[in-house]
Amino acid sequence: MWRVRYALAHKGLTFESVPLGFTDIPQVFGGRYKTVPVLGENDQMIVDSWSIVDHLEQTYPGRPALFSGPEEYAMVRLFDAYFTAEMIRKFFGLYALDIHNAARAEDRAYFRESRQQRFLKGRTLEVHVDGREGRLPALREALTPLRLQLSRGPFLGGHKPNYADYIAFGLFQWVASVNTLPPLAKEDSSLCSWLDRVANLYEGLGRDPRMKPLFEG
Amino acid sequence: MWRVRYALAHKGLTFESVPLGFTDIPQVFGGRYKTVPVLGENDQMIVDSWSIVDHLEQTYPGRPALFSGPEEYAMVRLFDAYFTAEMIRKFFGLYALDIHNAARAEDRAYFRESRQQRFLKGRTLEVHVDGREGRLPALREALTPLRLQLSRGPFLGGHKPNYADYIAFGLFQWVASVNTLPPLAKEDSSLCSWLDRVANLYEGLGRDPRMKPLFEG
Repeated sequence: MWRVRYALAHKGLTFESVPLGFTDIPQVFGGRYKTVPVLGENDQMIVDSWSIVDHLEQTYPGRPALFSGPEEYAMVRLFDAYFTAEMIRKFFGLYALDIHNAARAEDRAYFRESRQQRFLKGRTLEVHVDGREGRLPALREALTPLRLQLSRGPFLGGHKPNYADYIAFGLFQWVASVNTLPPLAKEDSSLCSWLDRVANLYEGLGRDPRMKPLFEG
Repeated sequence: MWRVRYALAHKGLTFESVPLGFTDIPQVFGGRYKTVPVLGENDQMIVDSWSIVDHLEQTYPGRPALFSGPEEYAMVRLFDAYFTAEMIRKFFGLYALDIHNAARAEDRAYFRESRQQRFLKGRTLEVHVDGREGRLPALREALTPLRLQLSRGPFLGGHKPNYADYIAFGLFQWVASVNTLPPLAKEDSSLCSWLDRVANLYEGLGRDPRMKPLFEG
């Protein structure tokens, strides 16, 4: 999860990132965890990105804080509730099949069956993304609050990047790692320069030559 | 605007609230302002709720702060961009005609014409709200992030109310002042107790016997 990578980098912590395929997860953790991210530190295992963030803030109070205090923390959680739920749903409507095709061959059947059953009421991934070009305008429109915010400062967090930037950027990285249809219009300059700005943080943590274009044209 | 009333109360400032009908606004301010809220203080006039909030924070640094710092401020503006745009649109789809009917007789024609032209592409208010009961589930679903946030603390701001609480509460007060169809299900206990909690702040600032029920049944 990109948001966790950025949280670790924000705190100046070094880490090794181990990508896991869908079907690796229960196996690697002996069935204890079914989702990523999982942070392993010394003898501890912490699952779920907010639990990881809480753990990092508590364990490393001397390092750069992720949150200025409980007030900002509460507001970032509220943003997560708004942004992540809405955008994951919208992105999934365009990229469900791309995610499948980008997965390792041995993970595809699991991904297809679990998603079709859990989220698509049995419809196929192909049916779910059919006519996806027609949903681009609504997806772009849903990003209006981000553009409004970026008209007031370089980051979602204001003058400095905060965990809201890492949350939103993480979703775009996820799309960039699989998409075969760029979600954004090339004129979308405020999002474009913000994505560049966040990718360049922490010695270019978000830069990855394998990423597919997010902008048309 | 309720959010401004709450901001003033939060800072412990006394104020006199002068409700204005739609067609009063240009008249009262000699055409200088077309929208409310407008804060008049000594010789200054400040229009737009965020400008008022900025002004209050700068002018009264010794009084209780509305924001813990620029980080929380940025996140509350982002919440405003998400919540207000989406909910005003959704509420308007149910209550456009109720707002009209609740306005003073001399304001109704102006309200109808300006809204039909500006927001409804010429359709009537009646057509816009037709079948509104069918849109209740989507409206209630759109409040899921608030419920999630309220499962973690008594206020949207966390342990203490913040300006995000005042923004969201203000929209519900607006609905409560006009609605002829309660928007919320009676089982919606986390929203219900939060609305009570915010209404009770500052010696019951939000309590008003003229308000219509927000909950069914």
